Amino acid sequence: MNICIAGLGLIGGSMALALKRAGYSVDGWNRSKEPLGYALENNVIDSAAARFDDYDMVFVALPPKAAVQFINGNAFKDGAIVSDICGVKEYIEREVCLKPRNFKYIGCHPMAGKEVSGIENACADLFDRASMVMTRAQNTDNSAFERVEKLVKDMGFARIVECSAEVHDRKIAYTSQLAHVLSNAYVKDEDIEECFGFTGGSFQDMTRIAGVDENVWASLYLLNAQNLTRKISGLIDSLEEIKDAIDKGDFDDLAAVLHRGRELFAAGKENLCKNRDIFVKYLK
Amino acid sequence: MNICIAGLGLIGGSMALALKRAGYSVDGWNRSKEPLGYALENNVIDSAAARFDDYDMVFVALPPKAAVQFINGNAFKDGAIVSDICGVKEYIEREVCLKPRNFKYIGCHPMAGKEVSGIENACADLFDRASMVMTRAQNTDNSAFERVEKLVKDMGFARIVECSAEVHDRKIAYTSQLAHVLSNAYVKDEDIEECFGFTGGSFQDMTRIAGVDENVWASLYLLNAQNLTRKISGLIDSLEEIKDAIDKGDFDDLAAVLHRGRELFAAGKENLCKNRDIFVKYLK
Repeated sequence: MNICIAGLGLIGGSMALALKRAGYSVDGWNRSKEPLGYALENNVIDSAAARFDDYDMVFVALPPKAAVQFINGNAFKDGAIVSDICGVKEYIEREVCLKPRNFKYIGCHPMAGKEVSGIENACADLFDRASMVMTRAQNTDNSAFERVEKLVKDMGFARIVECSAEVHDRKIAYTSQLAHVLSNAYVKDEDIEECFGFTGGSFQDMTRIAGVDENVWASLYLLNAQNLTRKISGLIDSLEEIKDAIDKGDFDDLAAVLHRGRELFAAGKENLCKNRDIFVKYLK
Repeated sequence: MNICIAGLGLIGGSMALALKRAGYSVDGWNRSKEPLGYALENNVIDSAAARFDDYDMVFVALPPKAAVQFINGNAFKDGAIVSDICGVKEYIEREVCLKPRNFKYIGCHPMAGKEVSGIENACADLFDRASMVMTRAQNTDNSAFERVEKLVKDMGFARIVECSAEVHDRKIAYTSQLAHVLSNAYVKDEDIEECFGFTGGSFQDMTRIAGVDENVWASLYLLNAQNLTRKISGLIDSLEEIKDAIDKGDFDDLAAVLHRGRELFAAGKENLCKNRDIFVKYLK
């Protein structure tokens, strides 16, 4: 299988390394020269790709709009598989399905990342024990889906979570985007500039992702605006509820409000497979 | 130096282990029998204390109200040092200073913890590389403060952050209590029960402390209510600002709002020592 990765950042670079670790040969391409040079020098990829109509499999590891532009602007081999790894899936699926294609599209979103970006932070084990979300539409090609599944398994992922692009975008608004919004909001406190000796693990957890690239995330938020703003509103309601209970000063009431959070979190951990809109497949 | 730790939970147990690692002999006491038995069997403490008027140093590792009750209900040696480790400091200082004492009080708050509690989770290295906040009031005894500093250093802490109880409570409302409120609010989403395959590091960070004991934290929140509710309100404002920018849909505006978070977080990291209300001492 002839594989190319377009976009050699943290995720694209890590996919290349993970695939090479599993024995695949991987070519790569990047918009700017430097990451490409780095990838070649450090054996992240085997060689540089200039065109894409020779590959059986092209992973497009670019931000959403760049991914669509890339897919529309290049020719692919008849029957090739083209996968993106974007953090929003309805937008990509819609754009890719706007016209007939000679390739098979499979949407992917790896549930792994780092608070730093760039190929110099890529690593072969980034996806070990992580989930890969793969989206499936009416016209998804089963054999292409299975071939991507095999690659996902070989990259080290622990499980594949299969759902529609719509389900993906709703869930991800909560599990990833809201977490990033929250971290960004949390650091906007008057005390942020003089608090670092007063911090332990909980502060570090809340702020780890506060410094992510605002351009990447602004774009993801706007492409999933309706889901995300509903999640932000819900979070604000939950904060108001705790604030009101503290204001009232009744210990039992406040403890009951907090207890509900603890219970929900504990109850949720095992529940995924009960949702019929989601199919979970454990690998290995 | 003759040391006793009253309250053998995660923090008290870890202090005992850290002090024993440094060569001290440490006695212990606990309200309930089981943790005391565990501490004796597992050499967390050297022996069980029944009274406290024999010790040069008593660390009271109990929740705020229990700590005050313990201090009021027991006799201490003339000139002994009594330290608490509570997450709120104005309340304890006020209660301890309500009447003349024959001992010297030093308020402490270790910036370390775990999302799990109990002596079975205690470990000798919990405080390695952490800050210890030590509070100082008008009448604080300098030589007692220095003796506690020495023990803090020997427990493995990397630095002592010295400030008033009032400064501590304001900072901690942000760095610790708000983080815990946030995590509890974050898990109260309609999708929490069916999202676990869609989660990566950011979700794990946001939810790690969602399951902490609501009774411990409700008490801390109520004893620092004014500071904490102001922090919650500020956070809600910051979330509203991001939500409004997403609603408006202007990429540059949204990126600018997010960028400010990234800048603030980066700028804050080195700023602590500029605040004259806080004195930082690096150990070792």
